[in-house]
Amino acid sequence: MGHRAAIVGAGHTRFGVLEDGPRALLRAATDGAFASVDRGADRSAVGEAYLATLGFGGWQIGNSSAVLAEEAGLEGVPVTRVENACASGGFALRAAVRAIESGQRDLVLVAGLEKMTDVTSARRRYWLGVSGDTEWERSAGLTFAGVYGLLASRYLHQYAAGADALIAVAVKNHENGALNPNAHFQKRVTPETVRSSPRVADPLGLYDCCPVSDGAAALLLAPSGEARRYTDSPVYVDGLGAGSDSLAVQERADLLRFGATRWAVDEALHSARAERRGISFLEVHDCFTIAELLALEDLGFAEPGQAAEMTIAGRTARTGDLPVNPDGGLKAKGHPIGASGVSQAYEVFLQLRQAAGPRQIPHAERALTHNVGGAGATAAVTLYSAG
Amino acid sequence: MGHRAAIVGAGHTRFGVLEDGPRALLRAATDGAFASVDRGADRSAVGEAYLATLGFGGWQIGNSSAVLAEEAGLEGVPVTRVENACASGGFALRAAVRAIESGQRDLVLVAGLEKMTDVTSARRRYWLGVSGDTEWERSAGLTFAGVYGLLASRYLHQYAAGADALIAVAVKNHENGALNPNAHFQKRVTPETVRSSPRVADPLGLYDCCPVSDGAAALLLAPSGEARRYTDSPVYVDGLGAGSDSLAVQERADLLRFGATRWAVDEALHSARAERRGISFLEVHDCFTIAELLALEDLGFAEPGQAAEMTIAGRTARTGDLPVNPDGGLKAKGHPIGASGVSQAYEVFLQLRQAAGPRQIPHAERALTHNVGGAGATAAVTLYSAG
Repeated sequence: MGHRAAIVGAGHTRFGVLEDGPRALLRAATDGAFASVDRGADRSAVGEAYLATLGFGGWQIGNSSAVLAEEAGLEGVPVTRVENACASGGFALRAAVRAIESGQRDLVLVAGLEKMTDVTSARRRYWLGVSGDTEWERSAGLTFAGVYGLLASRYLHQYAAGADALIAVAVKNHENGALNPNAHFQKRVTPETVRSSPRVADPLGLYDCCPVSDGAAALLLAPSGEARRYTDSPVYVDGLGAGSDSLAVQERADLLRFGATRWAVDEALHSARAERRGISFLEVHDCFTIAELLALEDLGFAEPGQAAEMTIAGRTARTGDLPVNPDGGLKAKGHPIGASGVSQAYEVFLQLRQAAGPRQIPHAERALTHNVGGAGATAAVTLYSAG
Repeated sequence: MGHRAAIVGAGHTRFGVLEDGPRALLRAATDGAFASVDRGADRSAVGEAYLATLGFGGWQIGNSSAVLAEEAGLEGVPVTRVENACASGGFALRAAVRAIESGQRDLVLVAGLEKMTDVTSARRRYWLGVSGDTEWERSAGLTFAGVYGLLASRYLHQYAAGADALIAVAVKNHENGALNPNAHFQKRVTPETVRSSPRVADPLGLYDCCPVSDGAAALLLAPSGEARRYTDSPVYVDGLGAGSDSLAVQERADLLRFGATRWAVDEALHSARAERRGISFLEVHDCFTIAELLALEDLGFAEPGQAAEMTIAGRTARTGDLPVNPDGGLKAKGHPIGASGVSQAYEVFLQLRQAAGPRQIPHAERALTHNVGGAGATAAVTLYSAG
């Protein structure tokens, strides 16, 4: 199995309600990525960069790719902004790997950013809302919490263990977030707290929903064959996959299947010539608790309906046989839209280098990340292995 | 010299004030691209797609990459939205070539789209405005016409022939647009009409500014080695280049040099192992007449200040020794933001296949396209040759 590219450095800001603006966040994440390279990396070696962002800083700054060049100190370097709603980060990483594969770049930077908390809430609702289907669903009043609430209703209707499983996802991800110093929420919650929280879109309550967060994350990629110039512990990208589905949920044959995720995981496994067993842990797109259950099933780690029992049994806990979202996931770590997909790879970088501190998964050697745009309209899946 | 990818099909809507909405425009351009493939291309052979758009249809539809999959009939296919302001199309084409180079895709679709005329003019001003520097320039009231007006003032201050050259660019591009059935403006203008038109941002008048247009364009790319499965007349992509510069014009050492264009052309020529001589014609980013003069100089086809005489002498006319913008350019053909960079490649596809009808440049064998985002903050340059 050939490696497609190597991650040799990674940076990450705190996620949460932050004082920093978008430029400062980008600078902190990219500075962190350069500083993390064990044997150092010169900024002049970076030949290409990608920026994942949905609204940057409230849509007041456009052409934001040029801002990344400025803040990362990459004079003249081409930067491409990639926007696939909440999957922007996963798709930007994919583009960065392609740039490495072209054979024309020594080092490629990918950064993800969102500054969500210093804009009016009307604008925030708008920019998130337009990432779903506008023509039929948003116009009818369906927010993202509303869409995922419908999916959760359907799941609970079909599978008896569903309600307890949603609670178990929230409790587990908060447990993991409590060990992540970058997480938006670093506190544990009890099942009773989750159960009794205010309803947002029944059956989803407050603790079923990811927060609105600021934050940035960045990665430095090198050709696999040159990775050890930078570090003795590179993390290799072995497989890329992506897919799309109808924007409107109502146009799908089965509400509980995200076709984009299924396409993406098949392609990723095929391109890496890998199998599911052997994957040490997953980072999945848990924008709502129900999304983590659906992800486990669409990714093929559980049969339809079986993610519920699997979660309740603790198998997806950090100490389970298939840890899911050891960094707290979007649920507890936070979900600064463009940053989220890049942040998933950051966690993989730490875990596969055995550098995740108190939340380290013992012997983690292979990982999968899963990043979704909209309610499953686009998805990117990436596979990694330790160097 | 190796070819990097081949264009085997291309489609284009009329540019202008159109009744069609964004979905219909995307469908028309992509249907046109499939229909143009001489020996046919099956949609199921498309493994990846890219969408270039700034605001899609007034920013009411986000996650627009999924819409391209729907309208192009590409079920499950991964689509990435690329947004680099007015250079979105050039950067999307670049990403599409990279996907072909990865060796994992038989056929890649790239589409560019903008629907600009059925949104409020406040929103239109906003979405264009944010593509310049907001923190210092837009906040001070500087529109894009204002920025380019300043650059034109400087050019006229330094070079005596500047004023006549701006007029000559407008007259030439309208002359070319009159022969392009897809152009927004298909009528010739006299130098006197240009000279006496209302001022927009002195010294730029109405005929110095590109219009606000709707439209879409699409390309189908295949690996070079497989191009002849689709057509006897592929057009090869031989070189890619791109660059960035400060978002704010005031931060540059020289107002009349777009560093991003200079980086981009150097890289494109280097990667194609090509030289400027031998290039039959250029498609450059003439959002304002002054931009065409600056492009000729930054691209290295004229010394600083010499693009003026070159243009006045008719050398850039369709019948000159270096035709520029034979399709009418952004100036006369129109500038539906995300579509413009893709549309430039469409013109190259026609010209290098000797299929451009009354505006055909005899013996066109090589071409260069140049697509700029903002006032020079990002730029993409692509080189092509006939099959």
